[in-house]
Amino acid sequence: MTQELIKDLVQQNKTKIFLVVLDGLGGLPVDGKTELEAARTPNLDGLARVSATGLHVPVSYGITPGSGPGHLGIFGYDPLRWRIGRGVLEALGLGLELRDTDVAVRCNYATLQEGLVKDRRAGRIPSEESRVLTERLQKEISHIDEAELIFAPGIEHRFAVVFRFPEPLEEGSDQVNDSDPQKTGKPPRKPEPANHQSERVARIAEKLIEKAREILKDQRAANYILLRGISQVPSIPPFERVFGLKALAIAVYPMYRGLARLVGMETPPVNGDIKEEIEFMKENLQDYDFFFLHIKKIDSFGEDGNFEAKVGKIEEFDSHLPAILDLGPDVLIITGDHSTPALMKEHSWHPVPVILNSPYVLGNLSSSFSERECLKGELGIFPSEQLLPLALANSGRLRKYGA
Amino acid sequence: MTQELIKDLVQQNKTKIFLVVLDGLGGLPVDGKTELEAARTPNLDGLARVSATGLHVPVSYGITPGSGPGHLGIFGYDPLRWRIGRGVLEALGLGLELRDTDVAVRCNYATLQEGLVKDRRAGRIPSEESRVLTERLQKEISHIDEAELIFAPGIEHRFAVVFRFPEPLEEGSDQVNDSDPQKTGKPPRKPEPANHQSERVARIAEKLIEKAREILKDQRAANYILLRGISQVPSIPPFERVFGLKALAIAVYPMYRGLARLVGMETPPVNGDIKEEIEFMKENLQDYDFFFLHIKKIDSFGEDGNFEAKVGKIEEFDSHLPAILDLGPDVLIITGDHSTPALMKEHSWHPVPVILNSPYVLGNLSSSFSERECLKGELGIFPSEQLLPLALANSGRLRKYGA
Repeated sequence: MTQELIKDLVQQNKTKIFLVVLDGLGGLPVDGKTELEAARTPNLDGLARVSATGLHVPVSYGITPGSGPGHLGIFGYDPLRWRIGRGVLEALGLGLELRDTDVAVRCNYATLQEGLVKDRRAGRIPSEESRVLTERLQKEISHIDEAELIFAPGIEHRFAVVFRFPEPLEEGSDQVNDSDPQKTGKPPRKPEPANHQSERVARIAEKLIEKAREILKDQRAANYILLRGISQVPSIPPFERVFGLKALAIAVYPMYRGLARLVGMETPPVNGDIKEEIEFMKENLQDYDFFFLHIKKIDSFGEDGNFEAKVGKIEEFDSHLPAILDLGPDVLIITGDHSTPALMKEHSWHPVPVILNSPYVLGNLSSSFSERECLKGELGIFPSEQLLPLALANSGRLRKYGA
Repeated sequence: MTQELIKDLVQQNKTKIFLVVLDGLGGLPVDGKTELEAARTPNLDGLARVSATGLHVPVSYGITPGSGPGHLGIFGYDPLRWRIGRGVLEALGLGLELRDTDVAVRCNYATLQEGLVKDRRAGRIPSEESRVLTERLQKEISHIDEAELIFAPGIEHRFAVVFRFPEPLEEGSDQVNDSDPQKTGKPPRKPEPANHQSERVARIAEKLIEKAREILKDQRAANYILLRGISQVPSIPPFERVFGLKALAIAVYPMYRGLARLVGMETPPVNGDIKEEIEFMKENLQDYDFFFLHIKKIDSFGEDGNFEAKVGKIEEFDSHLPAILDLGPDVLIITGDHSTPALMKEHSWHPVPVILNSPYVLGNLSSSFSERECLKGELGIFPSEQLLPLALANSGRLRKYGA
């Protein structure tokens, strides 16, 4: 509904919008202070004082988002409407570029003994060994039926495979169950189609399992593969068509470039860290309207439960903030895709602090950038999906609604 | 939508969630202070300081909820989707246990003269007199057609009757109009069915009126009965199935146990007041995951317009709070089902203050427990229905949504 309205009201201008995502930004107090409160962040604090602030709720109250729904929300899409399957996310994370012709599958190497799954992870074989096996599968199984097969090695026993069909897939083509029985001592499940349009995917999955079994038959541990999270790319309306913004994603980790690509952003690979990402943004500044800048490690340290390291990474980002401001964005948003309190060592449901800087704000409500100070801000607590409309409004890109 | 999502994400653990409902808690200032602000509540204030705080909006902005929608909301159900009829509420309040085979009706004793309703309340006959008449109706009209009839005496001219059918009722079986003409000097209305499935209820209603007229014909004032709010039990999805929580309701007043029973909580009778309720909770602590503890009198004093007594009852609850904390809940919520400002002498639409205590909160935002202090809290102003998802999240009972 909101997206339809936005599409009708969008107008073009020459403004630049920056969306800086500090992955897993939100936190919880340890010894009385959250990570943001403990961090020395003079630049973020100064920006918070002259900006609109608030907190956004990803998905819904109490719901902890994965990276997929977390990013869809701040990209302006309803994360309950557009679902990103496990196979798709895994393939994106391993650097595969997915299209509307593709079905993606997460796979495990496993050990099969007398027809039963003895080890669902093939003894967690080393990544290097798994990589060699995956390259062999790629070489020997490049096509099944009408589909091209594209393999990507992962960490330890994990890999992904994409079935690429000659034409875009109908909705529901991915409705095939996992072959992983979830427990050891059970036989693998046969991939069964749940409907007519998923029949050919099920057939290819079955053939893939048989071919892999033949290729891997002399392996001691990794003599079998299990298929999970069979999923196709959701047909999300492109970012540029909905919001009128030509968008560049700047992210070091493939998964986040992949998520941005799902909504139609351009996603060239970037190496390095914050400094290199900002340089890359500077080089491409003239060619885009919207810049999604993704900073990963804050979330990683949160998941490790490493409060100090998360604080340190926030401080490191703070030191780079002047370089971002120097690029002269018309609207600058700094937030996270979800919270990852070091206290919890995982993603959480807590609302995520936001700075929205533009010439059209009240400001002077938050004295620094933190969860508690953002509660005092003019944006209040609001659904993640509303961030993009606010960015458009603050950049003068939305016409008046109604006479 | 949210309930479907929650159902998919729920996981089990051994946590205990307490939902303490101070009925009609929210208030408005008299001489500058609300009831909560005027009350000396050191324990609630201390808890508010280390908890998440906020205010919940029952039903919608500006909508004053009855007890039914007020409780449905904090139980996690959309009060606009699930409607509790007047007959059902009256029967619950009079202690009748309703099933999906039942249609419940509020009744008045009335005075009929020459075929016209002369007094819709039979001169507000004393409860004791009315009780005797109702017992006589029960004795003489135990069945009509295929339905068993169960009568419950009420206050003054009021009583309730349940038509209990041999099998669960189709939706719409209660679509029969009131026989009460709403004005004196008019004839009673005939109960007419609005659809096919309500025909037998209308027929029984009509026979009931005739039989009661015969039985009451020698009464001076109460020589007739008027039927109102004919309603069946809504088929609400059970609390345990939706939220994965085995739930115990602890309430002295039958209506609140009845409301809890409608969503499938267990509802043994409890006598006494706050102290006895807490003891009952303690005795049953091991057998349930979720405890709904209902405290009634705060609302009653609000409805009486007795500001001081409402303050006193809040202070009394405060003195019992340490005993509740001693039971060691993992998540403790203290709130109301709606506001009942003594100033207004009735339920109101005002958002209701909430304390949510768990290990996963920011805290340190409200310096005491009141409407105005809760506005500073991390939960903001949110729909009542979101309270349950927040309770589940804070107890570690919701898995991550999406990868």
